[in-house]
This record gives sequence, C-alpha cells and structure tokens, in this order.
Amino acid sequence: MHEVNEELAQAVRQALNSKTKPVGSLGRIEEIAEHIAKIQGTTTPKLAGCTLTIFAGDHGIAHEGVSAYPQAVTAQMVLNFLAGGAASNVFANTLGIPVTVVDTGVAGDPIVDPALVSRRIAPGTANFLTEPAMTAEQLETALQNGRDIGTGSPDTVAAFGEMGIANTASAALVAHRISGMDLDGLVGRGTGLDDDGVTRKTKILADASSRCPGKLDAAGALREFGGFEIATMAGAMLGAAASGRIVLVDGFISTVAAMAAEAIEPDARRSFIFSHKSAERGHVGILEWMGAKPLLALEMRLGEGSGAILAWPLLQASVAMLNDMASFESAGVSGPA
Amino acid sequence: MHEVNEELAQAVRQALNSKTKPVGSLGRIEEIAEHIAKIQGTTTPKLAGCTLTIFAGDHGIAHEGVSAYPQAVTAQMVLNFLAGGAASNVFANTLGIPVTVVDTGVAGDPIVDPALVSRRIAPGTANFLTEPAMTAEQLETALQNGRDIGTGSPDTVAAFGEMGIANTASAALVAHRISGMDLDGLVGRGTGLDDDGVTRKTKILADASSRCPGKLDAAGALREFGGFEIATMAGAMLGAAASGRIVLVDGFISTVAAMAAEAIEPDARRSFIFSHKSAERGHVGILEWMGAKPLLALEMRLGEGSGAILAWPLLQASVAMLNDMASFESAGVSGPA
Repeated sequence: MHEVNEELAQAVRQALNSKTKPVGSLGRIEEIAEHIAKIQGTTTPKLAGCTLTIFAGDHGIAHEGVSAYPQAVTAQMVLNFLAGGAASNVFANTLGIPVTVVDTGVAGDPIVDPALVSRRIAPGTANFLTEPAMTAEQLETALQNGRDIGTGSPDTVAAFGEMGIANTASAALVAHRISGMDLDGLVGRGTGLDDDGVTRKTKILADASSRCPGKLDAAGALREFGGFEIATMAGAMLGAAASGRIVLVDGFISTVAAMAAEAIEPDARRSFIFSHKSAERGHVGILEWMGAKPLLALEMRLGEGSGAILAWPLLQASVAMLNDMASFESAGVSGPA
Repeated sequence: MHEVNEELAQAVRQALNSKTKPVGSLGRIEEIAEHIAKIQGTTTPKLAGCTLTIFAGDHGIAHEGVSAYPQAVTAQMVLNFLAGGAASNVFANTLGIPVTVVDTGVAGDPIVDPALVSRRIAPGTANFLTEPAMTAEQLETALQNGRDIGTGSPDTVAAFGEMGIANTASAALVAHRISGMDLDGLVGRGTGLDDDGVTRKTKILADASSRCPGKLDAAGALREFGGFEIATMAGAMLGAAASGRIVLVDGFISTVAAMAAEAIEPDARRSFIFSHKSAERGHVGILEWMGAKPLLALEMRLGEGSGAILAWPLLQASVAMLNDMASFESAGVSGPA
C-alpha cells in the first residue's frame, strides 16, 4: 500500500475529468477507479485478476442451537465447494475467478482432498458460552495462516468468503465487543431462524458476552467469541493489504473479519472495497459504523464470497475506464458550451 | 414471449429452493433467474450473449440552450463510439459485449463509416418548442427501424443505450405527457446544468408542453416531443421483446423509451429488466411510476447503455445459478435441522 499523496489524488481526478463524459457522471465507478489508483499508487492501475478464497470452520456454539442448519452442513458444503456445486462456484465460473477452499477447522475427521488447503487449527472452536472459543496460540496461528494465504501478486484482487454453521452468531458477538454497538441490532436470522430463534440466539449471545465483562480488543474478541475461519480471514485481509492487493469484502461475517483486521492494523483499511450490502440484519449497522459504502445491494445473505465476486466486473470496468477511455482532447469532443 | 403459466412458475421456485443455499438467500439474483425463466418459458433458460446497441440522434430543442454541451457533441461522440473510446465501449470491452452504433438522425452531414448503421430520419428533430418534433410518418419509420433492429436471437440479451444532446429534455417531456407525472420532478441537470439552467429548461419544457393541450398517447408524445433515437429505441425494445429477447433497460432516457414501448404494447414489459437507478433527477420517479426495481444503484448518469451493460454479469450469474448449482439432494447437503 502506497502512501496516498495529494499530487497523485489530483492527477487521478484530472484524468477522470478529462474523459469524454460529463464530470462525475460515472458516479461510484469513478470512486472505485480513484480508490484503486490510490491503493496501487499510480494513475494507471492494473488488475491482473481476481481470486476467491473461502475459509471454512466450525463453531462450538452451534451446539446451543443458534443456527437453522445442523453443524454437519459445514463439512458437506466444503465437499460441495470442491465439487463446484455451490453458488459461489457457479458465480466464480461465469466471472472467470478461480476458487480456493481452506479448512481452518471443520468439525469431524479432516476432509482429504488434493484441492483442499488444510490449515486446520482444531475440529471446531470451543463453545464460547462457557469458555473462550480458542486459545491465544490458536488465534495467533489462524492470523498467521491467513497472512500467509493473503500475500500474493500486488495487482490481484482478493475476494474472501466463509462457510461455518453458527458463524453469524460468532460474528455478531465479535462485532458487538469490538464496536460497542448494541447486540440486539447485530443478531439476525442467519441461514433462516424464525423470530423465536432470533430471540433465543440473542439471549445465548448476551449470556456468552457476560462471561467476559470489561473491554476486549479485537484479538480478545476473536479469541473469546470468534471462529477459526473469521480469524484466518482477518489475517488474510491483513496479508493481502500489506502486499498491495485489493481486498473485496463480502457480507456480514466477512465485514466483521474486516472490522477486526482494521482494528489490528488500521492501515489495511485503505485496501478494502466493500462489495455488497447483505440482507442479514446486522450488516447495515456494521457498514455504517465502519463508514463503508458497499457497491451492490442485491438482498443477498449467503456468504461464501458470493456477493464479493459479483462486484469484480465493476472493478474491471472502473480500471478500464481510467486507463482506456478517450479524453475530450484525444477524441476531439467539445466540452461544455 | 411465452405465456407465464403457474406450473412453470412453481417449477422454477422449486428448482431455486432445492439449491444448496438457504431459501431466498440469493435475493435479487433469484428474482432475475425466475424472471428470465418466465421470459423464455423454461426452467433451464439460456443466455447466448449480450449485445449493446447505441442509438444517436439530435434534437431541435437543443437550440434553446437546454443542455450544458453544444449539439456538435452528438456527432463527435458517434465518432468516439466508432473509435472505441467512450465509457460504454470500454465497459463493453471488459464484459465481452459487442457494440453497434445507429445513426437515427444526427445533425449535420451524415457520418460515413462502414461500422455505423445508418437509419437516419432527418438531421435532427424539429424544435418542439414551436412545432412537433417529428411527423407521424417519421415516427412510424423510427419505430419500424427499431423493430427490425431489435429482432434477433431469442436467447440473446439486448442492452440499448442512447446519445443525443438535449435528450433528457425530450425524455422528461415525453414521460410527463405519457404518465401525467409532474414536470418539475422529471427535469434534471442532464449533462450538468446548474440550478438556473434547470429552471430555464423546466420553463422551456412547460411552454413546449402548453403547445399541445389535452391528452397525448405514447405515439402522440413521441411525435410531439420525442427524439429519433428515443423512438427507434422504443421500437427496438418492442422488436426484441416480440422475438423473445431479454431487454436490458439503461437509465433515464432509455427508461422513458421503455415507458413508451410499454404504452404501445403492454406485453413487451415482461421482457424488460431494469439495470440501474440513474442519478438523473427524474429517474427514480419514473421507475416508481412503472413499478420497476433496478438492479444497480451506482450514482451513474451517463447514458450510452453504460449502466445496462454493467448488469449483464448479474444476469449471467442468475442463469448459471439456476442451471448449474447443486441441489441439497445431488450434493448430499442436509436441510434445516
């Protein structure tokens, strides 16, 4: 990540304003172009491609019945990702985006598949209602695993997604403890709880939270209430940002990982592009708290990076616009009368 | 366009609900898939590709100073489209979408270029402040030209865009007369008028409107106040819909063409997908009046089909999801507990 200098920012604005279009008429596409130019420290940024990495992990809190689906679904979905049958696979396929799946700690016996990247910390976190979700050592390992995965080609866009039954519960509590936002507003239906289920989930999370009175920093919140997939993703966001990559942030859970990553290393934030506004209840509040303005609002709430990768064509269009569009001068087009 | 039958609609919903995701969790992507399935009359729709056709035409009303740019820009931008330098070219290029430019009546001498499709009616419309923009015969020719252009492969998506200095003025008045919506709310900055310019534009449009008291149907509104590019586009939307294509509607001016097309042949509407919400002032009101829910909201206000084609990857993702995503059964994934 380059230091943003005022000279560069002005050069980018000037380039955008010279293009054959009314000033500002491409709205958010111009914003993205400017953002990417600043991340790469040049008026002619390059995007070599986009990759999707999906982090899977299980949660001890699932045993308290905070999800509409059984815990076995995490492992089943890992197999589905590997077979190319999930939504994010199908989207990635239409968009030319390669998908990597990382086992950060799926419950049960390890899945053995040559295409699966194994960074297993344990077969699921501990039940955070009664004890910390993970040890300090496990958190450090997850963050470091992520950093290693996130480091890559500086002109590549890294989209991250997750899978983990009960991980909206974990993410809601991590966000609550990092931000201080009201817990109620952060707890939603996840994969499809009814109203009673949400009430029950909120009660369980409030009880769990009361196990740790006082302040928690981001590392503390991840250790006490996080998931291996969330912590590994936060590390990957830090690694990707540090190596000059652009990070495409997905929905509710991924945004909480981004919140934790930013709390750990505030500079990383400049490399984040928020892809979409999820229909999961807490997402809007988290985005607002972070001052993040997502690109898409498609009423999606699936995770897996499915929203993040749908924003990739907008990034491509933005950068192509900045690099390839004619100027009033080059095209011989008159300016305002 | 197939008759929508309840059996098909149910089969599509069932297919969507069997996919490995919480029911409804892909939000508007599921809606699009359902919409396209109904247009094509099958649970396994196909999208062979997307094309962009840009209709260019000039407006006599430009001489009243209703635009921030001189009329010469229309012809200059046609050359820019042909050279591949405009925003829509650059976007289309990143998205693999071929672009066709149609001269429906650009002012001045005809542009001669083998890549330009010439469907010139006249070198610009008449000044509708004092006389009808076009004759009944000219309107018929424009609509028929459009129908011929719009007819194509039934499994292709047709995105339409426009270029024509002063065409937000024309479109605002056409929309006002077709819908009965308040004129003030329909008049915006176009390519960048200041507040005084908008006041002046509104006054001129109100004066022009008073030239034709009483009711006007869509053909009447197009004849009195329309543009050759708007009328040809409306015809193209009708031709595309009638031949089973999906029509991707762009921003303010294109939505007014869609409004006119729907008024002429209500059935065509079922083939329209509204791509984006423009920042041009009147667009939100028109979309609401039409009951249309656009996919993107990127604060764009350029026209040229630039917003329409950005929605193409969402259509591809939707159809791929319906066709290629695994079901709970095929992938061996458990349903809700």
